[in-house]
Amino acid sequence: MKELTISLNGESVTPLYEQIYQYLKTEIQRRQILPGECLPSSRALALGLAVSRSTVDMAYMQLVSEGYIESIPRRGYFVCDLEGMLQLPQEVPAVSVPEEEPAGTCRFDFDINGIDEDGFPFHQWGKISRQVLREGPKLFRLGDPRGEKSLRCVLASYLHHARGVSCSPEQIVVGAGNDYLLMLLRVILGGNRRIAMENPTYKSAFLCFSHLGYEVMGIGMDACGMRVEELKRSGADTAYVMPSHQFPMGSVMPLKRRMQLLSWASDEAGRYILEDDYDSEFRYRGKPIPALQGYDNHDRVIYLGTFSKSIAPAIRISYMVLPKSLIAAYEKRGRDFSVTVSRADQKIIETFIRDGHYERHLNRMRAIYKSKHDCLVAQLKGMAKICRVSGENAGLHVVLRFVNGMSEQEAVCRAEAAGVKVYGISDYDTSVLGQTASEGVLLGYASLTEEEIAEGISRLKAAWQDK
Amino acid sequence: MKELTISLNGESVTPLYEQIYQYLKTEIQRRQILPGECLPSSRALALGLAVSRSTVDMAYMQLVSEGYIESIPRRGYFVCDLEGMLQLPQEVPAVSVPEEEPAGTCRFDFDINGIDEDGFPFHQWGKISRQVLREGPKLFRLGDPRGEKSLRCVLASYLHHARGVSCSPEQIVVGAGNDYLLMLLRVILGGNRRIAMENPTYKSAFLCFSHLGYEVMGIGMDACGMRVEELKRSGADTAYVMPSHQFPMGSVMPLKRRMQLLSWASDEAGRYILEDDYDSEFRYRGKPIPALQGYDNHDRVIYLGTFSKSIAPAIRISYMVLPKSLIAAYEKRGRDFSVTVSRADQKIIETFIRDGHYERHLNRMRAIYKSKHDCLVAQLKGMAKICRVSGENAGLHVVLRFVNGMSEQEAVCRAEAAGVKVYGISDYDTSVLGQTASEGVLLGYASLTEEEIAEGISRLKAAWQDK
Repeated sequence: MKELTISLNGESVTPLYEQIYQYLKTEIQRRQILPGECLPSSRALALGLAVSRSTVDMAYMQLVSEGYIESIPRRGYFVCDLEGMLQLPQEVPAVSVPEEEPAGTCRFDFDINGIDEDGFPFHQWGKISRQVLREGPKLFRLGDPRGEKSLRCVLASYLHHARGVSCSPEQIVVGAGNDYLLMLLRVILGGNRRIAMENPTYKSAFLCFSHLGYEVMGIGMDACGMRVEELKRSGADTAYVMPSHQFPMGSVMPLKRRMQLLSWASDEAGRYILEDDYDSEFRYRGKPIPALQGYDNHDRVIYLGTFSKSIAPAIRISYMVLPKSLIAAYEKRGRDFSVTVSRADQKIIETFIRDGHYERHLNRMRAIYKSKHDCLVAQLKGMAKICRVSGENAGLHVVLRFVNGMSEQEAVCRAEAAGVKVYGISDYDTSVLGQTASEGVLLGYASLTEEEIAEGISRLKAAWQDK
Repeated sequence: MKELTISLNGESVTPLYEQIYQYLKTEIQRRQILPGECLPSSRALALGLAVSRSTVDMAYMQLVSEGYIESIPRRGYFVCDLEGMLQLPQEVPAVSVPEEEPAGTCRFDFDINGIDEDGFPFHQWGKISRQVLREGPKLFRLGDPRGEKSLRCVLASYLHHARGVSCSPEQIVVGAGNDYLLMLLRVILGGNRRIAMENPTYKSAFLCFSHLGYEVMGIGMDACGMRVEELKRSGADTAYVMPSHQFPMGSVMPLKRRMQLLSWASDEAGRYILEDDYDSEFRYRGKPIPALQGYDNHDRVIYLGTFSKSIAPAIRISYMVLPKSLIAAYEKRGRDFSVTVSRADQKIIETFIRDGHYERHLNRMRAIYKSKHDCLVAQLKGMAKICRVSGENAGLHVVLRFVNGMSEQEAVCRAEAAGVKVYGISDYDTSVLGQTASEGVLLGYASLTEEEIAEGISRLKAAWQDK
């Protein structure tokens, strides 16, 4: 029988049973107590340590459950053979790593990817998380590769009412972000496609398409979006568009152009339109236009939706609506890829939408963004001699084009010198897509306060006016 | 000024302010109160409803924050123009969808993909979740495409100590499941690779490789794993192996074969080994063998790790360790794909590992699985005349091969008739990979209790013995 000298600290935040457990575990790992040795009975050890017997029992139970000791009935507790046991270094240091956030040197960053972080519904989210975790182990079983059926039902209903998208839950595939869904689409559609994108366009999608091995072609755009005549001549078989609020130009595609696009798609077999509806939740002016998908009578639109803008980028939940014509291809090739969003996260977002929190959240965020938007637009009124504003009817950024002869590059540099970060449109075209027709800058306002917006614009005015 | 008749229910679980809010919101949405109309002052409404003024103020604040009404100083509250506001149907029905779980008709399912769900550390997981959620909005900003640096540091340390993997955090990429990581690898490596897999092999990986457009070739295996001579003749440039516990055969690749494999890889430029270390955490017998990656001096091993077996399939967190030679390719092509695991989930798993919970959890699960394993192996002893057991030194399943002339198909059918589900090895080869050399069945025991294991085996014995 081993003699044990454990010095317990009754003042510690670590419970006594945990101290006994830690001591014994370390002694066993260090081979101070050898496999096969017998430990004192819990009664004897409790007496020796002047603690209750249940405290020692808890420590012993923990050691048994982790395989350090075993209980042999009527004989006592014996140290196990440690073969196959995991032993990590006693103290894994609390790693304090400076996260590689790009350290903005500008005080006023009109970040086009930002959101209003204070708007995140922490309270509700936390409450629903706790509620979902209580559902128990079932939650951790691998689910449907398309995402949980109950979530897809809620999404189909939301998309119908909020976006005019008409689909059944069977057409929806949930995935961890748009980039992932583009990868999955490549598996479904095959890699031999020629993708048409507006120029300038959403750079991240452009890069993903390129890395996935597609041939990508830039198509010119006017105020209504992609030029369909040019698209027809291009030989592309897939058109990627953002009809609700083109990125970066901010234009909203009018109905007529949408119809032309749909007609292009149905003109030839195998043509598809990829509709990226990334920030359609926020619209400030003009009649609501349903998604392109809602007008599609020929099964040609693949609709992409995300919670990155409407909730937060890092929650990593997106979804796509496949046309019925692609379901067979998904079943054949796509279904074998497991779902990428955890079941817990799926349940949280499902509850958030179903119980009405999402509607409230969106209306609240829209009110916040509209107020910021109005503040920005009002401030920009004073700059009519310097630049024109466009793309201001929806979304979370506007476009400025200069009328005083200033180049984009000069505007960005002068702004930076004044402590203000703005983003050049030319960042969003690429050598592959050819030269952008227009120069200008983008101002995102979601992550700034109204005071910061006012101060930022006033600095821009000062920096840009003496051209 | 609008006259309002709201009937409040003091007994309801819905707070009074919420009832007022709901009533007004509905009236505004139904155009019973029109844009531009003035609401009663909160003092007047409070008086009329016999509630406190702060109750009405809360309702009004909620309506203001969601954009239904606005407050004009010294004039009162006015209903807003509803243009652009989201209005979902009042009552989204609580969707009750029967989840499409495959309804097992067998009472005793030796499921090879199961885990012991009761072992999931709910208490700790929930506690850490709550702690992580308190970190606030920063958590919802999009992070490093490889995964958070702090998580990658913890993983590098864990892999070093537990698996002998030597890597820096820069080599690690976190992703939502192995299937996703295989998609990402295709982007990094390009699609023109010829993948060698053991036959039989892990079907899910085989299907993913096929759907990703790779040429996949089956290589014969012996008790040590993939036959390297055959691999050399095959013309493959990438070998997918599971050295710690081959799926489905359960064999552990000995050191000599590992060295031959590494030598094959370094013989020619551009060759890689994909090491899938899916269930190495659970080993019951024999010396621990470090991961193949740890012996790799020529930068040829891509290591895949997952928490699907060690924690739960649905948490959707995996990672890969790239050889240094592939980092440039990742930076060039892979980095543009956003991370697929939410920052919150990354923080949870990081804390779980760093604070020692993962070590405890693994040792506890190993003790549980070892006990189930020992029970299964003891039960199988009585079946020596029927079948031989193999693959029993590690992992969560064993392999039975029949010595009484029974075919795999017959064994599966007889088992099913007796209410026991077992899995044929031939399910894991494919027509493309050619015929499997050996027949037999797989028994997973992770999700069964010891009583179920005993009863299941006793039924199998009865079903199989009169051949």
